[in-house]
Amino acid sequence: MKGTTRLVEVRTKILKENDVVARALRQQFRERGVCVVSLVSSPGAGKTMLLEETLRRLREKYRVAALVGDLATENDARRLARAEVPVRQIVTGTVCHLEASMVQTALADWATGELDFLFIENVGNLVCPASYDLGEELRLVLFSVAEGEDKPLKYPTIFHTADVAVITKMDLAQAVEFDLPAAVQNIQSVRPGMETLEVSAKTGLGMDQWIERLERQRRDARHV
Amino acid sequence: MKGTTRLVEVRTKILKENDVVARALRQQFRERGVCVVSLVSSPGAGKTMLLEETLRRLREKYRVAALVGDLATENDARRLARAEVPVRQIVTGTVCHLEASMVQTALADWATGELDFLFIENVGNLVCPASYDLGEELRLVLFSVAEGEDKPLKYPTIFHTADVAVITKMDLAQAVEFDLPAAVQNIQSVRPGMETLEVSAKTGLGMDQWIERLERQRRDARHV
Repeated sequence: MKGTTRLVEVRTKILKENDVVARALRQQFRERGVCVVSLVSSPGAGKTMLLEETLRRLREKYRVAALVGDLATENDARRLARAEVPVRQIVTGTVCHLEASMVQTALADWATGELDFLFIENVGNLVCPASYDLGEELRLVLFSVAEGEDKPLKYPTIFHTADVAVITKMDLAQAVEFDLPAAVQNIQSVRPGMETLEVSAKTGLGMDQWIERLERQRRDARHV
Repeated sequence: MKGTTRLVEVRTKILKENDVVARALRQQFRERGVCVVSLVSSPGAGKTMLLEETLRRLREKYRVAALVGDLATENDARRLARAEVPVRQIVTGTVCHLEASMVQTALADWATGELDFLFIENVGNLVCPASYDLGEELRLVLFSVAEGEDKPLKYPTIFHTADVAVITKMDLAQAVEFDLPAAVQNIQSVRPGMETLEVSAKTGLGMDQWIERLERQRRDARHV
């Protein structure tokens, strides 16, 4: 157990270092007026698809860009590039989450002040990203109807560190016998009062509300 | 980056300690003649459902039991107990994977020598469990058709450390326009020659082959 204690100590130090970088990023984003939104979920919950559709819809009125994290491949960056907005991939190798320093490095030569929205798609993982602040203004936690209603109960920490819960792939709800009231109740039992959205990026269900939510976030925070 | 280097050092030490415990477990399982099979996947890929159906089918001929890992709740242990076999839950708190020492502790007062099969369901995570040997004889990596065909490419390490890939929720394949040949090709490109099964625990598709595969594993390893 000695090794574990030491690991906890070192991990605490890393988290503190991460928080320092995240705070600097948040300050910078605020000064530059860019609204930064991050997405966390299991692998395959539909982050990239929701993001692609979001970028398509926003780009008509706003200057938008995205960063995407994955262990391997640049597939997601390629998918998102179809929305014809600037996209960068962060390849983490074996690291199970994004860290603020990775975001800082990826943005080093970007004029983020020229953006209205920047999206950050985390590595697919419902556990580890919870511990790492990325300097974002709004953090979404997604889970798909195919994953089941119990995800909030089984992964409470990630729900505690996110601002909005998004239930995805609502078009499959009937096929998987998804119990929406039970899912919402599970979210509320873990995090009373948590804002929840239901979407299907495939059929467009809930997308208007989601886009309005983003616009409101930007407007309220900036008084624009 | 200094903290990160130190983290890597401490992590390497923990992994070495884990390997020592895992080796002792594997030796013990072999001596006692119990076939130990572990399951890893994303949250919501269907580990518990596949396991529940597997336990139901095996218990008629074999002595079976299961350990299930989760950050929080004993829901999975309760679900698996419906199969009327001995089940224990390991609650990991914030730890994103099972470790060999957790398995050792959970089994301390179990007469595993009286079992034919022991199943270990890992925490839902496609990244972190890859690094931790649990002393199992066979490791499955599962992903559901709802997660998409690209999971092997994006999470290669977990496919490298597993023995069999299982594509789950095949009953939803049409609804999500799942491209099975592409998925199989992605598995093979990451891990040439990897054994792959397709199942639906809901409809029973592929379950007979899966049960036969388990029986063969036990027979071949033990010459019974």
